[in-house]
Amino acid sequence: MKFSSFLIKTLAASLLLSTTAYAEGPYRNRDNKDLKDVGEGTYPIPYQKPDVAEITEALNRVRTYMDAVTPTRVVLKGSGTEVTDFSKPVADAIFEPAKGDFGIMVYEMGVVHAGLLKAAEVTGDKKFTAMTERHLQFFSKTMPYFDAQEKQFHLERANSFARFLDPRSLDDSGSMCAALIRARFANVGPDMSNMIKVCSNFVSKQQYRLADGTLARKRPQASSLWADDMYMGVPALAEMGHLTKDHAYFDDAVKNVLQMSAYMFNKQAGIYTHGWNANNPDAPRFYWARANGWAVMTMSDLLDVLPKDHPGYSKVLSQLRLTLRGIAELQSGQGLWHQMLDRNDSYLETSASAMFVYVIAHAINQNWISPTTYGSIAQAGWTALSTRINAKGQVEGTCVGTTFASDHVYYYNRPTSVDALHGYGPMLLAGAEMIKLLKNPSIEIQHKVRTYHYLPAGNSKTDYREHP
Amino acid sequence: MKFSSFLIKTLAASLLLSTTAYAEGPYRNRDNKDLKDVGEGTYPIPYQKPDVAEITEALNRVRTYMDAVTPTRVVLKGSGTEVTDFSKPVADAIFEPAKGDFGIMVYEMGVVHAGLLKAAEVTGDKKFTAMTERHLQFFSKTMPYFDAQEKQFHLERANSFARFLDPRSLDDSGSMCAALIRARFANVGPDMSNMIKVCSNFVSKQQYRLADGTLARKRPQASSLWADDMYMGVPALAEMGHLTKDHAYFDDAVKNVLQMSAYMFNKQAGIYTHGWNANNPDAPRFYWARANGWAVMTMSDLLDVLPKDHPGYSKVLSQLRLTLRGIAELQSGQGLWHQMLDRNDSYLETSASAMFVYVIAHAINQNWISPTTYGSIAQAGWTALSTRINAKGQVEGTCVGTTFASDHVYYYNRPTSVDALHGYGPMLLAGAEMIKLLKNPSIEIQHKVRTYHYLPAGNSKTDYREHP
Amino acid sequence: MKFSSFLIKTLAASLLLSTTAYAEGPYRNRDNKDLKDVGEGTYPIPYQKPDVAEITEALNRVRTYMDAVTPTRVVLKGSGTEVTDFSKPVADAIFEPAKGDFGIMVYEMGVVHAGLLKAAEVTGDKKFTAMTERHLQFFSKTMPYFDAQEKQFHLERANSFARFLDPRSLDDSGSMCAALIRARFANVGPDMSNMIKVCSNFVSKQQYRLADGTLARKRPQASSLWADDMYMGVPALAEMGHLTKDHAYFDDAVKNVLQMSAYMFNKQAGIYTHGWNANNPDAPRFYWARANGWAVMTMSDLLDVLPKDHPGYSKVLSQLRLTLRGIAELQSGQGLWHQMLDRNDSYLETSASAMFVYVIAHAINQNWISPTTYGSIAQAGWTALSTRINAKGQVEGTCVGTTFASDHVYYYNRPTSVDALHGYGPMLLAGAEMIKLLKNPSIEIQHKVRTYHYLPAGNSKTDYREHP
Repeated sequence: MKFSSFLIKTLAASLLLSTTAYAEGPYRNRDNKDLKDVGEGTYPIPYQKPDVAEITEALNRVRTYMDAVTPTRVVLKGSGTEVTDFSKPVADAIFEPAKGDFGIMVYEMGVVHAGLLKAAEVTGDKKFTAMTERHLQFFSKTMPYFDAQEKQFHLERANSFARFLDPRSLDDSGSMCAALIRARFANVGPDMSNMIKVCSNFVSKQQYRLADGTLARKRPQASSLWADDMYMGVPALAEMGHLTKDHAYFDDAVKNVLQMSAYMFNKQAGIYTHGWNANNPDAPRFYWARANGWAVMTMSDLLDVLPKDHPGYSKVLSQLRLTLRGIAELQSGQGLWHQMLDRNDSYLETSASAMFVYVIAHAINQNWISPTTYGSIAQAGWTALSTRINAKGQVEGTCVGTTFASDHVYYYNRPTSVDALHGYGPMLLAGAEMIKLLKNPSIEIQHKVRTYHYLPAGNSKTDYREHP
Repeated sequence: MKFSSFLIKTLAASLLLSTTAYAEGPYRNRDNKDLKDVGEGTYPIPYQKPDVAEITEALNRVRTYMDAVTPTRVVLKGSGTEVTDFSKPVADAIFEPAKGDFGIMVYEMGVVHAGLLKAAEVTGDKKFTAMTERHLQFFSKTMPYFDAQEKQFHLERANSFARFLDPRSLDDSGSMCAALIRARFANVGPDMSNMIKVCSNFVSKQQYRLADGTLARKRPQASSLWADDMYMGVPALAEMGHLTKDHAYFDDAVKNVLQMSAYMFNKQAGIYTHGWNANNPDAPRFYWARANGWAVMTMSDLLDVLPKDHPGYSKVLSQLRLTLRGIAELQSGQGLWHQMLDRNDSYLETSASAMFVYVIAHAINQNWISPTTYGSIAQAGWTALSTRINAKGQVEGTCVGTTFASDHVYYYNRPTSVDALHGYGPMLLAGAEMIKLLKNPSIEIQHKVRTYHYLPAGNSKTDYREHP
Repeated sequence: MKFSSFLIKTLAASLLLSTTAYAEGPYRNRDNKDLKDVGEGTYPIPYQKPDVAEITEALNRVRTYMDAVTPTRVVLKGSGTEVTDFSKPVADAIFEPAKGDFGIMVYEMGVVHAGLLKAAEVTGDKKFTAMTERHLQFFSKTMPYFDAQEKQFHLERANSFARFLDPRSLDDSGSMCAALIRARFANVGPDMSNMIKVCSNFVSKQQYRLADGTLARKRPQASSLWADDMYMGVPALAEMGHLTKDHAYFDDAVKNVLQMSAYMFNKQAGIYTHGWNANNPDAPRFYWARANGWAVMTMSDLLDVLPKDHPGYSKVLSQLRLTLRGIAELQSGQGLWHQMLDRNDSYLETSASAMFVYVIAHAINQNWISPTTYGSIAQAGWTALSTRINAKGQVEGTCVGTTFASDHVYYYNRPTSVDALHGYGPMLLAGAEMIKLLKNPSIEIQHKVRTYHYLPAGNSKTDYREHP
């Protein structure tokens, strides 16, 4: 063998043996005060009941970092000189580039706003929405300027405001659209009607669809579905229903969830394949974690605003429950989920894990699923996630932007980066919802026999009487 | 990444490469005498036909260790002074604590007695039941004393005899109950009718059950099933049927096996989830190995005494066959089974592996399953298990006591210990049944083309004539 | 724990952490010219579009090695003195042994000839069939000599020509039989009618079968099916149909594919178990990769010559599609497939991977499956395979000859060797078919967003307009 040096053999042998002696530590459960308890092991993550103050501090770290790295200024491309005269457009005026290449108008930032709004709601601390306020004010202020720039210079994709002047994809529109509407409901930021009109119109009327109305793309094949597009489309439709009371939006949202699921949900595995191509409907499937994250976020977001008497309500809820069970069963022994959900030799990925923790915790808090069993899954997921927020407030271990591909080699080897914005919004959402779960008055969290049980509060009817 | 030091990267890269160069050795098959055979690899365990004398020696090592660490004296708590005057109870009299915290009245010790009885039966060596004899004599002698102690001091769980004075759980009762009855059938120890009456009454009449009669617990949720409880309840019921000829016991035993299976057996996976909570019937499932061990032990123990004309016989046998197939297919490449049966990144666990080897070998010997295929699975399982008995006779690699939990982080990170008594009884059973298998006159074990085939003896009708 | 030294603990801990930091490199995609692209990771294999010239060079390396190590001389056993007088047989005359113990008449060499014929066809370079020409001339020249030797000395298996003088197994006959007929169609070598008559007669009339006509063996059990035997039997039958136009051969070939599949294909998993024993029809299953390689090679070879109007055509095609989907989904993140297809802790095996790449590429080229999705799977498989051909032209990482066994310990620990001939033919086939795929005028290969998409040429109708 090419690789069979002494070193490799030694390491391979060690690898083998190591399966008989699972790694120790480095964490011990702080909730078990008996330091001599031989029944208590050590953990690769802090296995313990999370603390509200600690979560809040972690959320503030992420918020502070996000705030610091997302400037809202117009500058000249190249020189970086600030543009302050908005009366006459110049061709090389752009949004000031963010450190880490975070775009302030990209779909991932829509999720960050969702996370900040949720954090403000849960903590009551307005600091969390200051950045949203700032971004939205900036958009409101600069939209006419970039509109004029476009009319004069026809920059197309090079226009910083292109996504909302000339949207061309669900990525351009849906997630930020939902965020703008949510901000309006939360009274954060100025009136964004102009932008909402553009993006909602794109999602509901302009995006390419299959003949049956399912939101689709013309890439990578002529007619492709992406599970990600549930999130890129449906929450915007749902929030438009919420905003306008026009049930056609809800109908479209529900239809898309159910049809996307019919095409891409594997009932046997309980999870979604990343995508589907009309020119090869029985193709091999790739269970990319983040695509499943978008799927459950979508159903959760829809159920948040869908009237309970809508005929699709129970169907969407039932599909969410099925998926959460499949996902929950695939949680790793280290609390996070693998890049390829069904492959324990792929790396543990942060953004998808955060989405799962958020939706599981939220579904419990909304009474969509039982706290029983799911509570400790969310808790273990969160304590694992907490190790992925570094001292600077950066979120580590998130897979960078990833296309709908067709081989495992691609998916397994996608790099991770603290500059992958996909991890930030879900992390804020997960932490905020965990605070809500820990404070949920209808749930009692028991630490018993070295693990955790989430029970109906005040009425748990359990009995440990046989124990000394 | 927090962890991405040079060392980690190097090791991770090596890990990757190592999958292309599977670990070598350290064992070579001693049955292949051609040391230059390039078709013969090396193994992480001793892949070879086991030897009856070697197994017997290993069983004696375990027996000797068990005997040495399970004192049967009454002492004063704290001082350890022996109590010899049993005429008047004192409050701080207790069973002398066992080294390694092995309890002589715990359910795991019931399995040890089962293993010792089996080893004596198979080897014809009475030394194997000397410890059972000693423990039972001690119980018989001290029961009145601790009963008096309880009446006077009301120690409840602090009374060393509590499990049989005031049983409160199946763990207290079932396994030891079955062992006491088996000892009676084997004429080992004194008349234990008093204790049998207490425990059998508890299992059949006092334990909490679901409305449909399934044995249940009030923990961790208000109404929970544990797959472990098949073993904690059913063998006692079965042996009571065996002892009393009262079919109501058999009916209850069969009903519990079939109903527990209906709740907890996953037909697609061919294995049992650890438990089931009535307040969340569609919860995520956790395929803990030892729970599956208890399940197959239960069905095996029941079939040992269930009359063949009982209407449940074929149903229980069919369920056992289904489960053994599922389990057999999940055996690792190192002969043992993983802590989470469906997860090859969880550690290899001894107690469950020993239960599987015992039941597979026993099922072959009883003609419940074919020797074909299953024979070499049992053999490879045993040779792997044999490496887990150390020179002192301790059984290594057994997961400590584990509750029915709700997240993988808990299960994956349970420590293992030589003081986990759960591994000892199954190891004795597995070794003893392997001796029986190796001596089984109806089976011919062929070592051909570097592997093993278990065939119908004397009539194998195979043909290797094309080979030189 | 026996193994728990400090070193092991350290390595085990590292192993654990390493799953959060997937190994880097060492390969970067050469098709991405932007060396600063943060969205581009590194790969354990060369993830890139393969180059026809590079593949051709690799095939020539393998061809040259094969040619060099397969002498075609008759020599005296022991002394090695060449025998040139073929007028009178001597008892110790044998085929000159090949370096690496490659037999020139073994079934694996039949696959090598298939690969050489394919390589010659695809490249137009006759050098590829020079070795086939030489071997066949040698057979033609020496058959009468060894026939006379057998009549005089009755050497049985020790006669070098035994496989074609007195065939006793499908291994002796089928694969080489198919190769001889293919050589005739390609006008390579002399008239081999005598040998074709012997082997085709054995496969179609003499081999042991089940009562339902399925090709079977009397080992390892009295009546056993081997998935490998699809290849050892069916291509010979199919080529006889091709040669003689006698449909009875096609009927038998189709029947065997469908019946073998009924016994051994697991619909849920989408793959074949290695074998089946009549005396234990519900036995645990072992998804050995190479057995699945033989299965898909068989269906592919059959469809190559089966008339499209044969009633079995669509059934075989449908079974091939089902299997290729199952196999494609099990490709590792390193491009190859695991020794046990469903076990990612077993090693990555070359011969099976090469068979899969060949059949997937071939099925695309034949329009049996869509290029979409399957194209990039074949590509990633090939680039991984290319690293397994060393500078000498040896194929590394192939599992040595492996019997139908009954435990995972055996299968996991089969050694690999450059002397395992099973890898050579499939490697030649895979490379040749990849050249055809890369040149396929009906397919357009796009490198977009850091991955590969195989689309209908000239009419891809995709749209990436939203991108800058």
